[in-house]
Amino acid sequence: MSITTRIGILTVSDRASAGTYEDISGKAIIDTLTVYLASDWEPVYRLVPDEAREIERMLERLVDEEQCCLVITTGGTGPAERDVTPEATEAVCDRLMPGFGELMRAESLKHVPTAILSRQTAGLRGSSLIINLPGKPRAIRQCLDAVFPAVPYCIDLMGGPYLECDEAVISAFRPGP
Amino acid sequence: MSITTRIGILTVSDRASAGTYEDISGKAIIDTLTVYLASDWEPVYRLVPDEAREIERMLERLVDEEQCCLVITTGGTGPAERDVTPEATEAVCDRLMPGFGELMRAESLKHVPTAILSRQTAGLRGSSLIINLPGKPRAIRQCLDAVFPAVPYCIDLMGGPYLECDEAVISAFRPGP
Amino acid sequence: MSITTRIGILTVSDRASAGTYEDISGKAIIDTLTVYLASDWEPVYRLVPDEAREIERMLERLVDEEQCCLVITTGGTGPAERDVTPEATEAVCDRLMPGFGELMRAESLKHVPTAILSRQTAGLRGSSLIINLPGKPRAIRQCLDAVFPAVPYCIDLMGGPYLECDEAVISAFRPGP
Repeated sequence: MSITTRIGILTVSDRASAGTYEDISGKAIIDTLTVYLASDWEPVYRLVPDEAREIERMLERLVDEEQCCLVITTGGTGPAERDVTPEATEAVCDRLMPGFGELMRAESLKHVPTAILSRQTAGLRGSSLIINLPGKPRAIRQCLDAVFPAVPYCIDLMGGPYLECDEAVISAFRPGP
Repeated sequence: MSITTRIGILTVSDRASAGTYEDISGKAIIDTLTVYLASDWEPVYRLVPDEAREIERMLERLVDEEQCCLVITTGGTGPAERDVTPEATEAVCDRLMPGFGELMRAESLKHVPTAILSRQTAGLRGSSLIINLPGKPRAIRQCLDAVFPAVPYCIDLMGGPYLECDEAVISAFRPGP
Repeated sequence: MSITTRIGILTVSDRASAGTYEDISGKAIIDTLTVYLASDWEPVYRLVPDEAREIERMLERLVDEEQCCLVITTGGTGPAERDVTPEATEAVCDRLMPGFGELMRAESLKHVPTAILSRQTAGLRGSSLIINLPGKPRAIRQCLDAVFPAVPYCIDLMGGPYLECDEAVISAFRPGP
């Protein structure tokens, strides 16, 4: 019996979790992964307010209990008082992946000089990869297009499921030995 | 009654604080902000030696007591034994802004390969932004030109005063909603 | 009596330390430094498995006892479970040098999108510089070519020996005062 690949999508937003705002960012991530991935996968979608403890607990649950090999967050990465997603991510990760934030900011800088205000990071918890994306829907596809080619090989290296991409949309890069 | 916008300029230098060297870097920051900003502002200038505790206390005072919405430091960002400004900055900040250091180093790399030796960072203490600049006067304008377009919007997001730039000199970028 | 410049080369690899794999990466670093450096130097070569405590102790010995002004590691920088070289490096350093990792990843990104998976960093322990390189032999020369021009000046600033490069191969950059 093969186990379905599970990918966590965690929207961090006070307004969306209060129901006063539709979560179009979380939906945009699911839609993007749907066009990227050729292999089977299942989204595990969650929504929390901008509270460090709630973000941390949900990340722990998505990795430890829901068995997601990959968790993508959106929201809470800016300089506003309630933006604490990067701190919550660092708190639950064993090891950090600084290259993700560097590349996403460099990519966003091609479009807006305020890209440097995004504090997004990525890290590893056990054998799962957690990636922060910004909250703005238009930045989500830009950021994912930049970093996703490296994601399947990262998951290979951690002993996770083999993700296959729709090569007409995006190429997963796996270097030779 | 409107409150004047206060911006801290903190020079970190053993030699300048001992009076054996004129602080041209601090002055260069004030001069640059004077040509950048069209709205009213007031510099709060301070000078400390390369001592972590003194840097930390002065940053705390500039933010907590002097009510500066922005503090710009110069000096103490290299690899010499007494260079500890980034560590002092991280110690007083609640949250870090890695994009500032990344962009300033990338920009300086266009001019000198030793740009990677600059350990400068930026971060948030409460609702104030603290930015480290290198000590060399010629690097100050390069670094500020690179990051300043994002500074007014950052301060907006933290609920601070509305900074207006002289658009003939530099453009403050404020993305739409 | 002049003291010979000592440079530590530390290979971090379970397989190489178990003898099941020849350490071509450590050898590639020694070969590269041999063609780079015109001044006298002596390699201090060590090999440890991917164990955080062993890496930390060996870095401490190379700096504190073997008096290496520069230590270059290879291996253990990826996302696999046993890759812990960056964490061990941070644990023994007083101050970090984020610009090295940023530049090496940006340089490697020109060749492979998986460059963002490399978690390599650099830092200072006392007056010594420690630089992580990836484990793959082909990435070693790319990374060293990118960062080495800044290394001799870094060591100057820390009061270490004066390294001279073979200018036909690589230029050490030392900015004017």
